[in-house]
Amino acid sequence: MTCGIDVHTHVAPENFPAYRGSDSSIAWPSMEQGQCGHGNIIIAGKLFRTVRDAAWSAPRRIADIAQMELTRQVISPMPELLSYWLPLPDAVVLLRHVNAAIAAMVEEAPAHFVGMGAVPLQDVDTAIAELRYNKEVLGLRAVEVGSNVNGAPIGDPRFEPFLAAAEAMGVAVFVHALRAAKDRLCGPPLLEQIVAFPSESALAAASLITSGVLARHPRLRIAFSHGGGGFGVTLARMEHFWTEFPRFTELLAESPLATARRAYYDLTVFDPVVVRALADQFGVDQLLLGSDYPFGAYEKKPLELLRRAGFDEAQAEAVRCHNACRYLDIAPTGDGSLS
Amino acid sequence: MTCGIDVHTHVAPENFPAYRGSDSSIAWPSMEQGQCGHGNIIIAGKLFRTVRDAAWSAPRRIADIAQMELTRQVISPMPELLSYWLPLPDAVVLLRHVNAAIAAMVEEAPAHFVGMGAVPLQDVDTAIAELRYNKEVLGLRAVEVGSNVNGAPIGDPRFEPFLAAAEAMGVAVFVHALRAAKDRLCGPPLLEQIVAFPSESALAAASLITSGVLARHPRLRIAFSHGGGGFGVTLARMEHFWTEFPRFTELLAESPLATARRAYYDLTVFDPVVVRALADQFGVDQLLLGSDYPFGAYEKKPLELLRRAGFDEAQAEAVRCHNACRYLDIAPTGDGSLS
Repeated sequence: MTCGIDVHTHVAPENFPAYRGSDSSIAWPSMEQGQCGHGNIIIAGKLFRTVRDAAWSAPRRIADIAQMELTRQVISPMPELLSYWLPLPDAVVLLRHVNAAIAAMVEEAPAHFVGMGAVPLQDVDTAIAELRYNKEVLGLRAVEVGSNVNGAPIGDPRFEPFLAAAEAMGVAVFVHALRAAKDRLCGPPLLEQIVAFPSESALAAASLITSGVLARHPRLRIAFSHGGGGFGVTLARMEHFWTEFPRFTELLAESPLATARRAYYDLTVFDPVVVRALADQFGVDQLLLGSDYPFGAYEKKPLELLRRAGFDEAQAEAVRCHNACRYLDIAPTGDGSLS
Repeated sequence: MTCGIDVHTHVAPENFPAYRGSDSSIAWPSMEQGQCGHGNIIIAGKLFRTVRDAAWSAPRRIADIAQMELTRQVISPMPELLSYWLPLPDAVVLLRHVNAAIAAMVEEAPAHFVGMGAVPLQDVDTAIAELRYNKEVLGLRAVEVGSNVNGAPIGDPRFEPFLAAAEAMGVAVFVHALRAAKDRLCGPPLLEQIVAFPSESALAAASLITSGVLARHPRLRIAFSHGGGGFGVTLARMEHFWTEFPRFTELLAESPLATARRAYYDLTVFDPVVVRALADQFGVDQLLLGSDYPFGAYEKKPLELLRRAGFDEAQAEAVRCHNACRYLDIAPTGDGSLS
């Protein structure tokens, strides 16, 4: 089968370690067995999400990968497991468990999975140490980071040493929308993920531009989830002001568009109009397949989205395969183990 | 000259009334004469913005309209004059002054201007009364509203009686980004307008969908500034979840896209890629010319943007003229006085 890599899929492990501390209100996850192979993820005593066994089962995922006409998934933690809000020692315990579960899935089926871990960014030094552990001990090629860390946008210079370390180690970074501001939403909590994520993603990507962090690390391989949300529209405005508005021009050493075109954008966007706009703005070579599998209303036909966007076969092949290989530094075939 | 209507231009009056109250920290504006025909708008003792005399001078604007190859501007208050944050009696005094200045400009050159006023939305009943006053006494055809009112998104049901009144009176509504959340920005205050406005606009438009307000008022003529910011991308995600995710489906009586396609979107977006995406998503007939004249880095060549987006002459004419006439309920020629 032709190489097809989905860079945006999530894992929730089948079990979590018991919490060893004494804070009864801590947001520590546990898994309760549900019906028909489902699991209920309980966080802080409340049902957070019911997931299918596809959240942890390699054979189930491999069957679904074929169903989606793909060959491989990048597997990353369910974002609510990023644990930035836990005390650091607890976060390290939980993330090591999650990262080990991901590494075990990769070991089980290295031709089908590429491992993407997580690190406790509430402490940048520890995050760097864990990034090294993820790469050197667990063999994970990529790291998922939140669009914000406890409210601080990922472009904040405090996170620059971590991104510099990822650049130096050659670990790919995947920025995922997380805990968006809810004060502009009208309706139930589920709107956070449906409505607020695209705005949150746009602000996260913009923060990496306006702080200068992305421009200072041109070899960082970084991708934005959900196509960067509304970032493309924001970027057009930034580019215009950078050209015409001296106070903004002097803030940035490089055109925002030039900086942004070095990053990658996944196509978890559900609409060929949005796909086309991303291609026109960033270039086809910066686009990656993404589905958000196995959660919610994940994209079940990612290849059809490419067809509906009018990509020719060479463009589709770049998006399906070559761009992701470049982003992850893997070969189009083979086991994707660290070179 | 061919009809060309710019729906997104702002006015700051040449003078403001003196503040009559006793709160020395109030955000009351005053105008200080600057150099070379400029004025300095002082708010709460600090320079808010230096503006050219184009902010209030009808002859200067008429010359600039011709320079932009257009024929007419919709003139609305500088958003920072919306005054939602003032005590209600103060807001009424200030807004009546601003609205009267706009009406006077329309009276001075009715072939070149269409008046868009503002109302104190911190009190919905007063806002409705002032809307009627603006229409019946001042002859203003449209009203500018903020994307949020003191933090509450414009789609909050508390504002529904006002929007229902605008629908019933036949006054066009223009939603303008305002005082966006700043907690995800990295850099100087100017980023609020450059970086945060598109996300803020997206959330405002989405709030009108998720609350059901827009669906309940199908005859409301409403437009979103800056092309709705990132709303198009957010909407694609909303539409997908509405199709695939039952808990979101049951929230909305109508498809989000169907609701959104009744609204108008201005082209203050600076990029033909964004223009094309708006056309593909909402239809050419829902697009309006916009420039943000005379502030900051306003769009100086709005017609060239249409050409770069690849619109044919019929499409360009719709965007230049007919769509705005429909949105404002005016004839392509004539003085635009209330019918």
